Amino acid sequence: MTDALQPGQTIGILGGGQLGRMLAMAAARLGLKVHIFEPAANPPAGEVAHKTTTAPYEDETALTSFADSVDVVTYEFENVPAAALDLIEARVPIRPNRISLATSQDRLTEKTFLRDIGLETAPFATVITEAELAQALASVGMPSILKTRRLGYDGKGQARINDRHGAPAALAAMNAADAILEGFVAFDREISVIAARGLDDTIACFEPGENVHTDGILDTTTVPADISTATRERAFGIAGTILTALDYIGVIGVEMFVSGDKIIINEFAPRVHNSGHWTEAGAVIDQFEQHIRAVAGWPLVDPVRHSDVIMTNLIGDDIEQVHAIAAETGARLHLYGKAEARPGRKMGHVTRVLGPATDR
Amino acid sequence: MTDALQPGQTIGILGGGQLGRMLAMAAARLGLKVHIFEPAANPPAGEVAHKTTTAPYEDETALTSFADSVDVVTYEFENVPAAALDLIEARVPIRPNRISLATSQDRLTEKTFLRDIGLETAPFATVITEAELAQALASVGMPSILKTRRLGYDGKGQARINDRHGAPAALAAMNAADAILEGFVAFDREISVIAARGLDDTIACFEPGENVHTDGILDTTTVPADISTATRERAFGIAGTILTALDYIGVIGVEMFVSGDKIIINEFAPRVHNSGHWTEAGAVIDQFEQHIRAVAGWPLVDPVRHSDVIMTNLIGDDIEQVHAIAAETGARLHLYGKAEARPGRKMGHVTRVLGPATDR
Repeated sequence: MTDALQPGQTIGILGGGQLGRMLAMAAARLGLKVHIFEPAANPPAGEVAHKTTTAPYEDETALTSFADSVDVVTYEFENVPAAALDLIEARVPIRPNRISLATSQDRLTEKTFLRDIGLETAPFATVITEAELAQALASVGMPSILKTRRLGYDGKGQARINDRHGAPAALAAMNAADAILEGFVAFDREISVIAARGLDDTIACFEPGENVHTDGILDTTTVPADISTATRERAFGIAGTILTALDYIGVIGVEMFVSGDKIIINEFAPRVHNSGHWTEAGAVIDQFEQHIRAVAGWPLVDPVRHSDVIMTNLIGDDIEQVHAIAAETGARLHLYGKAEARPGRKMGHVTRVLGPATDR
Repeated sequence: MTDALQPGQTIGILGGGQLGRMLAMAAARLGLKVHIFEPAANPPAGEVAHKTTTAPYEDETALTSFADSVDVVTYEFENVPAAALDLIEARVPIRPNRISLATSQDRLTEKTFLRDIGLETAPFATVITEAELAQALASVGMPSILKTRRLGYDGKGQARINDRHGAPAALAAMNAADAILEGFVAFDREISVIAARGLDDTIACFEPGENVHTDGILDTTTVPADISTATRERAFGIAGTILTALDYIGVIGVEMFVSGDKIIINEFAPRVHNSGHWTEAGAVIDQFEQHIRAVAGWPLVDPVRHSDVIMTNLIGDDIEQVHAIAAETGARLHLYGKAEARPGRKMGHVTRVLGPATDR
């Protein structure tokens, strides 16, 4: 525990959205202070943090004084510029490490990494030019989906290609950004494993959840997922393989497609993950505290699940259901304190307890 | 729900200690803002609150702008001067109400109230003068305990009287404050019921916990308490009787002595209570969110317990055990972010899960 933060020390968090907000509260429960760095004014996480710096990721003075005020840095947002991370890393450890972040930031690097460590992904090919796209379509097949290599989330920066006639429009939708063509995977269900790795190399996995997306945004996560014992154990193994290969510290969210006996990795997020929000109502520890423990060098907790649950995101106008949800028995409501409910904006979530944990 | 606060509205909290800190995080989870009013600098609750005002309770300007910035006021600290409450109440509702607070602030008023609504208390008598003390000792008996009527907590302001020779020293220890002599109650165990009453008059009780004190400070709360079904149901009834009699809104902590089939009320606290901290690890809702829901006019949650637990306070030097506790399986640690560990100071608590909830 020599590397462990002491109560009263400070964790810096890059990004001040709802994930940062929930991380900040988890840190406070452990007696740790939080300093949020976020370019946008009045971030949700700032409401519950010791300190907030509002500055762009290009502001070297602000980044320097942020780095000097904290004992370790983590992030809730992946698209932090490399130069900002270089500056911070020269002063204070960043967890999860740079290679984990860089790998996840680029879909091509990520899929190549996954393939290289022996995991299965959808077929993929790099696409910059029209000629490459034609070649990629030949190798990957159709229908397939063209995605920007970087900066995509919640279904943005993606274009489906059903036949050759759709190719030019899809390429144009990339706005000249480097892209990757991914083959469609026929799957029975999507699951995700929220797992953590500590400074002592311990790995701890939460029960896999089963995800349903609507319009490219996570709608519900149901736990446990409807998968076989063998698939469940293999999913844990896959998460462990990724964590070890990256020498990862912190919580990771790994999205997987399950097709019969096969598991195909979709992607991983090097941070706490929307599909892990159920943990606060269904397990003895939530993903936020597990992440804080890992990056603070504290021991991980065996994340025993005590309840069967379903987590539903509250998006945009869903916020109007809040008082009705608040009146439901067995529904745990969590709101993010965002002032304006724009369409597609994640405003909160609710985890409904279905009953005591069924045996796995 | 017409009186219910909307997400984004603000709850004012008088007092910025660990109870305020945990209330502030519960409010944030519901999308509500918190404004802390606390005379001492850098209060623990300020770390996780939208806003903190540092000013004495005599500062009318600060109190006025505090009251005008919030939609409802609650408190985590009972000894707020009446003048400050008068000023606030002229501008914004205070929940729980003034009569609940005033009743609990004075041991004589409290015991008289409990007796008047048909509940059993220890024998008691008012004591100001030496002559009254002699009379009180005659009626109450010895050993007995002399307590200041106001401002006592965690065993402070109390003096035990074993025989007549001890009477003058005990009276001197009151420092001329009005006092009450209380008879000792022979009891098998102390329990407490954490209960809540909402704006819609709904009452919800958490499972009674069994408390053990050391040096006058709560050491552990074990849930469920080792009591009969009949006693448990009567304990719920007693909490309900008190809440209804006071037209109470919010969470209350009622301490009771159990002696065979009898329940004798010790005292109640008009706020979230140390013996209710276990709820965050053992029930589907914690006492802090239940209190916020009540004072915000939201529906209460049926506080189903999912685990058997024991909560242990971490006092003073106990903070040095933190890393060992963090490594325990099934131990939920909660620290208050206090910089200095003075003897007797509550630094945090740990709730150990003993197993799934045993049937009651």
